[in-house]
Amino acid sequence: MATKEDVMRVWKCADAVCFDVDSTVTQEEAIDELAKFCGRGYEVSAITKEAMRGNLNFKQALTRRLDIIQPSMSQLREFIRTRPSKLSPGIKSLVDVLHRKCIPVYLVSGGIRGIITPVALELGVPLQNVFANRLKFFLNGDYAGFDETEPTCNSGGKAEVIRRLKEKHGYSNLVLVGDGATDAEACPPADAFIGYGGNVVREEVRAKAKWYVSNFKELQDAL
Amino acid sequence: MATKEDVMRVWKCADAVCFDVDSTVTQEEAIDELAKFCGRGYEVSAITKEAMRGNLNFKQALTRRLDIIQPSMSQLREFIRTRPSKLSPGIKSLVDVLHRKCIPVYLVSGGIRGIITPVALELGVPLQNVFANRLKFFLNGDYAGFDETEPTCNSGGKAEVIRRLKEKHGYSNLVLVGDGATDAEACPPADAFIGYGGNVVREEVRAKAKWYVSNFKELQDAL
Repeated sequence: MATKEDVMRVWKCADAVCFDVDSTVTQEEAIDELAKFCGRGYEVSAITKEAMRGNLNFKQALTRRLDIIQPSMSQLREFIRTRPSKLSPGIKSLVDVLHRKCIPVYLVSGGIRGIITPVALELGVPLQNVFANRLKFFLNGDYAGFDETEPTCNSGGKAEVIRRLKEKHGYSNLVLVGDGATDAEACPPADAFIGYGGNVVREEVRAKAKWYVSNFKELQDAL
Repeated sequence: MATKEDVMRVWKCADAVCFDVDSTVTQEEAIDELAKFCGRGYEVSAITKEAMRGNLNFKQALTRRLDIIQPSMSQLREFIRTRPSKLSPGIKSLVDVLHRKCIPVYLVSGGIRGIITPVALELGVPLQNVFANRLKFFLNGDYAGFDETEPTCNSGGKAEVIRRLKEKHGYSNLVLVGDGATDAEACPPADAFIGYGGNVVREEVRAKAKWYVSNFKELQDAL
């Protein structure tokens, strides 16, 4: 993928669009918010920093953060109810346009499925198009780990989801939109990557992305 | 453990008593009952038979039966609420006597902890004295497996629990009471095994047990 024009060309004839969720479709990092809600914000942000320094792989970082938060089922429900994720400006309109053009939209996230479900419902994205990590709980509601068979809990998990989508549906112009390093890394197999900096600008992503936007209107206008 | 008299001697000076639960403390096999409740009784009893023929180890049999039942959180809650386990005659009185003598009572089961919890409460057995398998669920209540770190999900799991109890508390006259082959096998490390045939008589257990009783009154009277 050589130039911005190449990326724009794929975007114009996209046959599937995958969006990252945290800091892309929504304005915040949900696991950090959940940690704060459960009173463990400080410890969890320390792990996040360690992961960003490259000392932990994705699954280790997820495991350790969730082991610290230990969210009970009732805490997670209460978090979802009282702190719903805020959509980024313009995303609803962009997804509506994509859907009107019959272009399937997917949400592919290293975050928590239960938190993303209401986001998908708000955007009209079918729940089978959501790929994210599923938390587990014991009968008494205590945290019991996460589904380690979901590709999204691994480093390279987004690439794996996209590879499977392409294989299953035969997409040849699949575009991935996201703010993070794990998004940029998933192209290929994505046919094009568009960096999004409307919530947070990550310099290494901006440097890597041939097309970097700070609002979704730009993407909508370019369709 | 040579004779019935030897077993009776250990029973009289027991410093801990472990009871099996299904078909011992309670009258039925809870997983079979749960399977019937969820409409999968026939398939699950086929697996139980296969396991009894020795074709499956305990964890495989548990995994396959639960994979067939796929009990949701609400089904399990409804089962516990509407089909509470029935105590075997005399068990409450026996446990009361043991507790009055300050002899700790444990429930050690290859069954499901959530189903045993009300049994323990009814008997006044502290919940930390219950060893059984913990089911897991996703946020939407779907079945999500069981805690594979619990010793009770493995073949030889009861022996492992008893070994740990003896090591932690220094018991030297720990008696195990149960109806099944997995109970008889856990002696040693149990210091004595008493076979119980009040609900179902398993010939291989009756043959192996030096002391085999068909009601708990006999045990209570012998204390």
